[in-house]
Amino acid sequence: MTGKLYQKLVKNLTTKETKKFNAWLEEFHSIDIAEVLSELSDKELLQFYELTNYENMAIILEQAEEKTQVRLLRLIELEDETKLFSQMSTDNLTDIMGNLPFKERKELLNRMKNNKSGPVSNLLGYDTESAGGLMTTEYIALNEGLTIAQVLNKIKTIGITTEVIDTIYVLNDNKLVGIADLRNILAADEKSLLRDVTDYNVVSVLPNDDQEEISLLVAKYDLTAIPVVNRKDQLLGIITVDDIIDVIETENTEDMFRMVGVSEEESVHSSLKNSIKKRLPWLIINLATAFLASFTVGLFEDIIAQVVALAAAMPIVAGMGGNAGTQTLSVVIRGIALGEIDLRENWRFVFKEIGLGLINGAVTGLLTGIILYFQYGNPYLGLIIFLAMIGNLLIAGLAGFLIPLFLELIGVDPALASAIFVTTATDVFGFFIFLGLAKMMLGFIS
Amino acid sequence: MTGKLYQKLVKNLTTKETKKFNAWLEEFHSIDIAEVLSELSDKELLQFYELTNYENMAIILEQAEEKTQVRLLRLIELEDETKLFSQMSTDNLTDIMGNLPFKERKELLNRMKNNKSGPVSNLLGYDTESAGGLMTTEYIALNEGLTIAQVLNKIKTIGITTEVIDTIYVLNDNKLVGIADLRNILAADEKSLLRDVTDYNVVSVLPNDDQEEISLLVAKYDLTAIPVVNRKDQLLGIITVDDIIDVIETENTEDMFRMVGVSEEESVHSSLKNSIKKRLPWLIINLATAFLASFTVGLFEDIIAQVVALAAAMPIVAGMGGNAGTQTLSVVIRGIALGEIDLRENWRFVFKEIGLGLINGAVTGLLTGIILYFQYGNPYLGLIIFLAMIGNLLIAGLAGFLIPLFLELIGVDPALASAIFVTTATDVFGFFIFLGLAKMMLGFIS
Repeated sequence: MTGKLYQKLVKNLTTKETKKFNAWLEEFHSIDIAEVLSELSDKELLQFYELTNYENMAIILEQAEEKTQVRLLRLIELEDETKLFSQMSTDNLTDIMGNLPFKERKELLNRMKNNKSGPVSNLLGYDTESAGGLMTTEYIALNEGLTIAQVLNKIKTIGITTEVIDTIYVLNDNKLVGIADLRNILAADEKSLLRDVTDYNVVSVLPNDDQEEISLLVAKYDLTAIPVVNRKDQLLGIITVDDIIDVIETENTEDMFRMVGVSEEESVHSSLKNSIKKRLPWLIINLATAFLASFTVGLFEDIIAQVVALAAAMPIVAGMGGNAGTQTLSVVIRGIALGEIDLRENWRFVFKEIGLGLINGAVTGLLTGIILYFQYGNPYLGLIIFLAMIGNLLIAGLAGFLIPLFLELIGVDPALASAIFVTTATDVFGFFIFLGLAKMMLGFIS
Repeated sequence: MTGKLYQKLVKNLTTKETKKFNAWLEEFHSIDIAEVLSELSDKELLQFYELTNYENMAIILEQAEEKTQVRLLRLIELEDETKLFSQMSTDNLTDIMGNLPFKERKELLNRMKNNKSGPVSNLLGYDTESAGGLMTTEYIALNEGLTIAQVLNKIKTIGITTEVIDTIYVLNDNKLVGIADLRNILAADEKSLLRDVTDYNVVSVLPNDDQEEISLLVAKYDLTAIPVVNRKDQLLGIITVDDIIDVIETENTEDMFRMVGVSEEESVHSSLKNSIKKRLPWLIINLATAFLASFTVGLFEDIIAQVVALAAAMPIVAGMGGNAGTQTLSVVIRGIALGEIDLRENWRFVFKEIGLGLINGAVTGLLTGIILYFQYGNPYLGLIIFLAMIGNLLIAGLAGFLIPLFLELIGVDPALASAIFVTTATDVFGFFIFLGLAKMMLGFIS
């Protein structure tokens, strides 16, 4: 996709006309240019840096991959870094600086103008997955006593450096008390006061709040930004919706991946070495649980030796249980992520899972039983698998429902390897109930 | 969560003071009130409707559940519906009207003031999962030749009814040519022209573009709204970021659910009947594939009868393959959803999957082989499972990689039941290679 742009860019790098080059750059979206940067060699990257003005360079660098950011910063002087950083918004700057070694970070902070190093070193102190780590300090906050004319004047002056313009944060005595919509400000009489157009019903978060909960609030209230306040209601920053979208994508990847034992850091572009390092440990845990299932079968080796048909039929019981369990598991994990379910409030839902297991088990069990009866000509074998199927789909529903909610209750990510736990439960129980029933009714089937 | 608010609301419904009631309502977020509405009886709902002014009612109804919307509309007169709808933005109105029976919809469109029924009946014609179905017609679009003073005047007049204020769409000859940031407009000289602050690099979509692709664009370019144009570049509407967040949540649920055969319409709150109707068909498909695996084992019944240990060990090979395959599958499905992978461009990644299968298979196979050797005292049994494990994890990687990409290639959702296909492949092949090798080396293990 970036192939053509890459070729054009490399061709343009040989130019001496800085101004023309920058005008050419501005024809493209900064993110598209940023993507191409990672394909450049160190030499080309330095050429690019020397041709590009600080303003363009800052915008492009903000959007580049972490690796490319660090690579470029390595290539240039500390003094140039400071100039580059002075063009960036504090939240992006903080993200980039977080990737640098501690010593370099400290030196840069010292060199930066005071008005920027303050917020950045504050932001660097928060967990990257918390409200504090996501927030930016570029917003407009004004006192509720100002007139609309004064407000408009302020917006004209400081609006250009802010990340969000459609919402003005309204303060009283240095505390966040409400928000004002720019639409209402523009439509209001110039002599009226900011408080006349203020909505005092403001949704805010605390700096240590988790990003997943924040994204739920933003989605629920259709916000374009959410303010972050401390316990005294003083405004510390705002989180903008573009960062929230990234959070939602990350959290969703995380749930889907963790469920099956894949690290959320993996992508199709991960190296072979990295993929092995991330997946092998989970496969070894899975191996341990597979031995549990194998051990269960081993308990009934004498029965299987007498009725070998059992060996062929037993994977059906285990497999169907695993599938039904993963279905319930997915619905519950998603429900937890969307804040729709909580074990303390919704434990009654367990009865629905029991009903689901009984009915789905009875229908699929009946089908299987009939087929096995015709296949082996033995009605008791059909009866055994019918009963085993009901039992195992019941366990599947219970495990798929209770395991993630229990993990959530004890403070562990409910998605974490839960598919492995659920299928272990259905494998072990499935083999046990099927072969156990066969042992009890051995006289009828051998 | 809504319990307290529900009690307060019901208590307030008995009041006769409409004005006070509406002032009380405005203390809360409309979405919170909307959530409580679904708990009201028909009688209470009508009481609520009669107390609430049209403006508040419109905002609350927009956010209520589909069921509650239809329930309320059933309770009130057609004429009142028209008044209520005149307060709503076109995209929300379109969504609500889409739920009504055709005849009622048509009658409403006829009754509505012409200036609104035009856009609404246009929007109703688009697929709800396309750009046309998501867009709203409340935006500001101005000619590039206007002066900043004229622009500011227009914004003050029409800004109050628009969904997005921070971006102004710039037209030339009725075509969308660029966007202007309100920050730049506010900071510009009043005598300069709109074209001086216009960014001519605009990302837009066509009305039939799919919502998933649109959400990728919005996430990539950090947009708060994306314009929808026809093939002549005429602006038809815009899609706002709050609707995009809903799309992202829906699409993510869809991928996670479809993979394991759960309908994207299911949630923890679905009724037992609905859950059965949605899940049972997938379980029956899974049953068919389980019989395939069972049939494979059946081919080797004579071998199992001679070495019963095989029956206990075979679930390990199949289970490990299923898990490794689902790991790869999750990474690939997510990669497709995020637009990071395409079979035509990235088929070389298959070599990584082959490497991953060989190495993970060798490590876990070696562990399993050693354990089985000590368990049964037969080195050949260990060797067989070592080889089978390598083979099955290889198949797991290939199936997990190729099945979703192939589904994507032929235009089917890559997530659709792909976990069932992948585990069928690993079950069938796992049993086949393990028992097949055992048959070949029967002399050494019996």
